[in-house]
Amino acid sequence: MWQMTRQDLRDLAVGAAFLGTGGGGDPYIGRLMVQAAMDAGKTVTLLDPSEVPDDALVIPTAMMGAPTVLIEKIPSGEEAVASLRRLEEFLGRKAYATMPIECGGINSTMPLVVGALTGLPVVDADGMGRAFPELQMETFSVLGVPGSPMVVTNEYGDNTIIQARDDKFMEWLSRGVCIRMGGAAYIAEYSMSGADVKRTAVPNTISLGIRIGRCLREAKQNHKNPIDELLKMLPDTHYSYGRIIWGGKVIDVRRETKMGWALGYAQIEGMDGWRGTMEIQIQNENLIARVDGKVKAIVPDLICIMEAETAEPITTEYLRYGQRVVVVSVAVPPIMRTPEALEVFGPKGFGIDEPYTPIEKLV
Amino acid sequence: MWQMTRQDLRDLAVGAAFLGTGGGGDPYIGRLMVQAAMDAGKTVTLLDPSEVPDDALVIPTAMMGAPTVLIEKIPSGEEAVASLRRLEEFLGRKAYATMPIECGGINSTMPLVVGALTGLPVVDADGMGRAFPELQMETFSVLGVPGSPMVVTNEYGDNTIIQARDDKFMEWLSRGVCIRMGGAAYIAEYSMSGADVKRTAVPNTISLGIRIGRCLREAKQNHKNPIDELLKMLPDTHYSYGRIIWGGKVIDVRRETKMGWALGYAQIEGMDGWRGTMEIQIQNENLIARVDGKVKAIVPDLICIMEAETAEPITTEYLRYGQRVVVVSVAVPPIMRTPEALEVFGPKGFGIDEPYTPIEKLV
Repeated sequence: MWQMTRQDLRDLAVGAAFLGTGGGGDPYIGRLMVQAAMDAGKTVTLLDPSEVPDDALVIPTAMMGAPTVLIEKIPSGEEAVASLRRLEEFLGRKAYATMPIECGGINSTMPLVVGALTGLPVVDADGMGRAFPELQMETFSVLGVPGSPMVVTNEYGDNTIIQARDDKFMEWLSRGVCIRMGGAAYIAEYSMSGADVKRTAVPNTISLGIRIGRCLREAKQNHKNPIDELLKMLPDTHYSYGRIIWGGKVIDVRRETKMGWALGYAQIEGMDGWRGTMEIQIQNENLIARVDGKVKAIVPDLICIMEAETAEPITTEYLRYGQRVVVVSVAVPPIMRTPEALEVFGPKGFGIDEPYTPIEKLV
Repeated sequence: MWQMTRQDLRDLAVGAAFLGTGGGGDPYIGRLMVQAAMDAGKTVTLLDPSEVPDDALVIPTAMMGAPTVLIEKIPSGEEAVASLRRLEEFLGRKAYATMPIECGGINSTMPLVVGALTGLPVVDADGMGRAFPELQMETFSVLGVPGSPMVVTNEYGDNTIIQARDDKFMEWLSRGVCIRMGGAAYIAEYSMSGADVKRTAVPNTISLGIRIGRCLREAKQNHKNPIDELLKMLPDTHYSYGRIIWGGKVIDVRRETKMGWALGYAQIEGMDGWRGTMEIQIQNENLIARVDGKVKAIVPDLICIMEAETAEPITTEYLRYGQRVVVVSVAVPPIMRTPEALEVFGPKGFGIDEPYTPIEKLV
């Protein structure tokens, strides 16, 4: 159990952008919300999964929809709290803690807002181990914790409680509700016992986000190469392997918003010894990187595009022609690489007709 | 309290098509479902609103969406029962009875299926007094009974419980869910006390449907003019005034399915003394009838197109070039003509820029 500091929060915003692998939305708004709560004297307590009693009820919270909408109608933070409270009422039980469902992007910070406003501790774990675009793409779901009942709430207090036959249909129904709520909504789902947290969550992903942000910051302060330092740090985490897989200049970006996603690709012409052009296919997140048709990294392993100069992670919406970038790929933990997990959020889950090959073998 | 007979059911199917004023869907499927339940030894008990204890809980049930979809995936009847049961669980109370929300079209029969399958009595009343396309268009809503909490269920048992700030937003959210459930769903909403039934419902609309069907049938059996007989019967009901407002031949029909509605118009060239051409504007239901721009009847008063030969009500989807028809307009009860009611389901509720004028004044 530990209290999050303001510095942790700033570091997390950077680390969560890295774990977002291009998607997940900018954690900036969430960071501001937690900061405002801290300014008002609130605290955020994080719990290691091992500290959660087996029979405790954990209710994860998140935002759902387009982060671009969120920026136009900034939430008060009470929306996600309302979802959690509705689910508590529906279940007839109080939550012991909340937890992220996603550690990449904005959803790394949303449960911290809930924690600050309610006083509930936040479990240092999540169900995606990165960012993914759909709600069934969760280790929770893969390992048998149902997403339903799920609550979807908006800023007016309108809410729906969804009970679906499976998590894919829950995603389908809730996406429809979210769209009708204006494209952004606040959710509570995958409620589970402490025992299930330990069994199904990707552990220590908030602290991983903080460590990534801190590592990049300290490297810069100490005039070291931030990306090198990051790759040296990773073996000490559950994300034990990371490599630079490309470096060069963005020469083409195609993006269209279709079916609620940012779909497209980026082309990066190799420089500094990298020969050829890397093409990265995007569905919110960076899904697959190829050079001359040859796969260099593939989902669910992380594919992160970073500014060559500053080592800042670049999210899909900020990709621009002419940017000098470094592409880093990182191995995800074993819990995310089982055949059952790959079925849901491996290449097949995105309609990509390529087998999954771990980044360690591709390098 | 009375038991519905098979003949009642056949008569209701005709009368409910009349009360559908072109919309509401064909009650045929619902009739078959009730008949199957009767064949299996089940009964349908109808209750006069005055027979419902003031503190009893009444949960109305209905189908929602496109009746055309319903015909392609015929329900078992358990879907609407599941909605009722979910709402009972959510409210923590058992229903004393069910009730229609709409007495025109298919929703006149859906609660009878629920009544037959559960043994619950069905209150002889509804909230529309005809058919309307949207869920906030209810005397219940106008008179302060909220539609929420509302349950939407499909044939797979997927369900959502919707709690919305108002009934229009409930319509908006549930329509989104219904579309994602494939365009047809089963609902329980506007749960209320017996006292509220007496205060807010349009009374005796199922028995009215039966009486209309019976009247048309008996007139034909006795070689009398069915429409004349119907108009003679109406003063004995809450729908106290009815007139033939046109007769002629359908010379044009335009219909398009847009935003989930059948939008368009029908043109009827006058014959047998009717001079000019009547144009009827349609949004699922017949909304306004004009001759040379002059209003002849307007929503919420009923505008029913009937086959001249057989006196069968013609629903929007069966309108065809060349049909010989008679157009009948009927006054709705006072509870549907208050300024508050007209605000919701008068011309303005449909975006029609005409004042409401009662049919008695237009004739």
